[in-house]
Amino acid sequence: MASRDDEMRDFLYRAGIESGAVDSALEIDAVMQQWRRRFRKRELGASALRDLKLDDRLDLAQLDVLIAIWAPSKEFTCKAGQETMVATVAERLAIDPSRASRLISDLIARGLARRAVSQQDARRTIVELTEGGKAIVRAVRRYKFLLMGDFLSGWTPEERATFLPLLDRFSKWTDEAPNMASDHFVEEIAALVAALPPVDGG
Amino acid sequence: MASRDDEMRDFLYRAGIESGAVDSALEIDAVMQQWRRRFRKRELGASALRDLKLDDRLDLAQLDVLIAIWAPSKEFTCKAGQETMVATVAERLAIDPSRASRLISDLIARGLARRAVSQQDARRTIVELTEGGKAIVRAVRRYKFLLMGDFLSGWTPEERATFLPLLDRFSKWTDEAPNMASDHFVEEIAALVAALPPVDGG
Repeated sequence: MASRDDEMRDFLYRAGIESGAVDSALEIDAVMQQWRRRFRKRELGASALRDLKLDDRLDLAQLDVLIAIWAPSKEFTCKAGQETMVATVAERLAIDPSRASRLISDLIARGLARRAVSQQDARRTIVELTEGGKAIVRAVRRYKFLLMGDFLSGWTPEERATFLPLLDRFSKWTDEAPNMASDHFVEEIAALVAALPPVDGG
Repeated sequence: MASRDDEMRDFLYRAGIESGAVDSALEIDAVMQQWRRRFRKRELGASALRDLKLDDRLDLAQLDVLIAIWAPSKEFTCKAGQETMVATVAERLAIDPSRASRLISDLIARGLARRAVSQQDARRTIVELTEGGKAIVRAVRRYKFLLMGDFLSGWTPEERATFLPLLDRFSKWTDEAPNMASDHFVEEIAALVAALPPVDGG
């Protein structure tokens, strides 16, 4: 719908944003939103469980918890040696602690995780994967990287070398954005607020 | 944790995937997983509601439904003129229809959406935004693109022109991956399945 985009372009132009940046923002956003929908649907996770013949014994929520206990260091930016408690899993997955606790109990009942005593503080109960739990995380990750590695084999080394730093740089946007608005666009945001009609409370 | 990555590299190398593609896959995945966590936490959506002073009247789930009714054409790849029903919203957001129905009723009670009769089939009830609902979607989108446009203004036109086609091409991976495994890696996946220990059923 071109008219919607035109209205947005006009607004951003008046806010002083150059048109090349506006065009890129609109196109990048379309890609990101599709990813977001796909993440939500968990298509790859579902196909991993299916192809690994785990889908009758494990669901996606349980798989997420297994991976959060396993804690890939890059993904969760956790300190080396950080122990995993129920609250840590809840925080890593942005779910509430009671749900995390229930999912962890499921995994313990299936022999995929176990409770243990912290080596750092004997009053603390931690959660860790059993060998069976580790084997599932390993298989799912190998499955994913088989597909992703195969896909990226179709790229030239130059394409990969160009893409990565730009992707990394773009991802900074998702770091900074939530705190940028109040500093950069005080006037524009005040105008947006002023233009909103009243909404009935909940 | 280098040892985990080394193990993965070794496995993928034996599956015939070239090492440059493996390195890229590991790094790109780390970025994507961070995005995924961020999408889950909805930091930008939350800051939009906060800065637009909507957060005491609207939550993120309701905002998602407003946007799904509004249906950005690029994002949801919907046909032009496609009407929105409760089931359409559920499908777009990958939530169950009863939850979609409840959220839509909330929005109707607040005057942000309304029911109407389909112009294409009089037996069908559709959902559309009121002017108030449209005003909120417009403000949230303007907020987002202000920040994103500003961020991308710091890039050179060449950087933007290089990034976009690569991002687009990479996003094809998320399209194809869930259906690729069964064709490409029959043997490797059979070996992964064989190596899994038995899991107790639910």
